Formats: sequence, C-alpha cells, structure tokens
Amino acid sequence: MGKGTLYIVSAPSGAGKSSLISAMLETNPTYAMKVSVSHTTRGMRPGEQDGVHYHFVQKEHFEDLIGKKEFLEYAEVFGNYYGTSRVWIEENLEKGIDVFLDIDWQGARQIREQMPLARSVFILPPSNGELERRLNARGQDSDTVIAKRMAEAKAEISHYDEYDYVIINDDFDAALMDFKAIIRAERLKQDKQAAKYKGMLNALLAE
Amino acid sequence: MGKGTLYIVSAPSGAGKSSLISAMLETNPTYAMKVSVSHTTRGMRPGEQDGVHYHFVQKEHFEDLIGKKEFLEYAEVFGNYYGTSRVWIEENLEKGIDVFLDIDWQGARQIREQMPLARSVFILPPSNGELERRLNARGQDSDTVIAKRMAEAKAEISHYDEYDYVIINDDFDAALMDFKAIIRAERLKQDKQAAKYKGMLNALLAE
Repeated sequence: MGKGTLYIVSAPSGAGKSSLISAMLETNPTYAMKVSVSHTTRGMRPGEQDGVHYHFVQKEHFEDLIGKKEFLEYAEVFGNYYGTSRVWIEENLEKGIDVFLDIDWQGARQIREQMPLARSVFILPPSNGELERRLNARGQDSDTVIAKRMAEAKAEISHYDEYDYVIINDDFDAALMDFKAIIRAERLKQDKQAAKYKGMLNALLAE
Repeated sequence: MGKGTLYIVSAPSGAGKSSLISAMLETNPTYAMKVSVSHTTRGMRPGEQDGVHYHFVQKEHFEDLIGKKEFLEYAEVFGNYYGTSRVWIEENLEKGIDVFLDIDWQGARQIREQMPLARSVFILPPSNGELERRLNARGQDSDTVIAKRMAEAKAEISHYDEYDYVIINDDFDAALMDFKAIIRAERLKQDKQAAKYKGMLNALLAE
C-alpha cells in the first residue's frame, strides 16, 4: 500500500474551506481521508468538541510538546497557542490515509518546508462582494469584525500563488468536484500507483 | 486566457488508450481539447480518413518537413515515416486548447525533452491475460501477430515509470473518470488558474 498525501488547505475566512473539506470527507467513503485536528490552548467555544474541532490543552502541556518538537508548526495568536502535531499526521500518512490540514499561509509555509511531499490547495471566493455577503450571512460577527476579516482576507489571498492548486468557490458543487478531481488525480501519480499496484506490475512485467 | 496543456498518452496495444481518448473528447464538450493527428507516409487503411487518423503525405514531402524542423519527433517504422507536427501543437496550446498526443515511450521521451510543460499519462491493462483477451477480441490479427504484440506490450509497459500519471484500465468507466480527474486537476494548477482568472484576482487584491 502506498502512503497517504498531506493536503495543506488555505483560504480567507468565508471562502468555504471548512464546508468543502467536510463535504469531501462525507461524500468519499471509499477513500481513506482525515482532517488534522490542531492543538490549542484557547478556551472551548459553544458547540465545539475536544478532539473534533481542536485538541484543547493547557498552556503548560503545549509548551512541553513544543520542547519535545512534537509540532510541525505552531503559532501564538492573541495569547493562545495553536499547533499541528507531527506524530499524528505521519502515523496516518503511513497508513495510506490522506490528511487535510486547514491552515493559513504562514503555517502553510512552515509545513511545506518540513513536509516537501505535501500538496497545497488555495480556495478563493469569486469576488470581495460575495465574500462580504457570506461573512454577513453568518450573523455572528459585528460590522467591525467583518471589516477586519475582509482586510485579513485580502492579506491571505495575496499568497494564493504559493499553492499547487487554486479552486474558485463560486458554485459549491463545482468547487467540490474540483477538490475531488485534485485528490483523485494525485492518487494517480506514478509513484502512488506503483506502490499501490506493485503486485500487478510485477505480474505484467514477469518473464 | 491560459495556455493549453500537452498530454502525452502511452499504453501497450490493447490497453484501451484510443477508446479512452475518444470518450474523453466526446463527453467533455465544455473543455477545449483536441487529439494531435500525426503525419505518416504509410498507405491509408480501410476506414481511415486523411486528417482524422493521420495526415497522409508523400515521402518527399515528409523529408522536406524534417528538413524544416517542423516535427517535434519522427520515426521510421517498417520503411514508413511517422511524425508529430510542432507547429500545429503549439498553435493549439496557445489558443488554450489541451492537446492529446498518442505516442509510444520512445516518442514520449523526445516530446518531453522539447516540451517540458507536457504532462504524461500511461495506461495499463489489469493483467496480461486481459490484454491478450482484448487483442484476440479485435478479431483482426493472427496468433503470430498477437504473440508479437504481447511481447511489444511488455516492452512498452516496462517504461510506465517515466510518466507523471498511471491509469489502470480494468473498468472502462472508472478509467475514464481517472483520466477526466487528471485533466480537471491540471487545469486547477496555480499558474493555469492565475492566467485564467487574472481579472478576478486583480479585483480581489485591489486596494
């Protein structure tokens, strides 16, 4: 069996990244795929579950893991740590499972350096107007927060050209088909197929 | 608009390469795609059409084109020339059209050297037994010819690892979906998307 692929997925808030990753996992039961769950020291929000949305840990424990070099990347944001466990990802890739890593462009850069075989996907909204509409439709943020997110979105979008693939999420179903095509095509790469069909290839080439 | 991609497609005889390319063109009307039509000096066979299966030309004309360096590659097989027109391919790629080039591993090597942005796909049969069954089912070749084709198939298959992608054509519909996923994913590569959505990206990043 071949190894899984690590997919780095970035997008501005409101581009539909989480929905696309969720839909991908739900509609592809035959593929072995998982989403990487980050560690964080921030408090749990309403509706969040430990081990699903984040691994919620104490600051002392997080700093202990940093010392043991257990993170592929970590960052401190507004006084809270966020990090990606190297061990968990490598174990899953080894089992042939594709792992999706939802991360911003700064984190993506750190991951690429350490995991050169990772593939990266950037998801874009079709326009700023549509992005603002989607952020407003959530109904959970104030105008000030939305204005701040729009500025952050532009900063995030400016790094789209550091990614292997770019998906425009205008029509959700089309964007999901794009995402699926990328995963399917990556599994058809020569080295992945050679590992998966080693026995068949030996038989085809036997004297 | 972005440039098209040149796809080098190789397979042993009987793996289903021509059927896959035909089905791809028929079921993808929204994509601009063409099959490269080779030049040849061999005689036309029953059912063949000039300009569709080959550009049938006289030996003197072919040698004139060789002199003008109009071929990306050419070969002499059993006294007949076969060649791939560089000019025709480059004109189509420039228009944003994807071009499929059905060629053996030797030709593929020559094309790769001259067209480094080309992507290559190798199509494998699931087993030698199935390959032999498909060659027999054509009903147009003698046992001797089939034995020779099986030996040639093994030689061709031994070069599968020089290709970017490998498709196993066991179930035709699944193989076609694989092929389509590759084309779709390649069109989502960052440089292709940046060229296609230049205006949209400028608007997203405008101050």
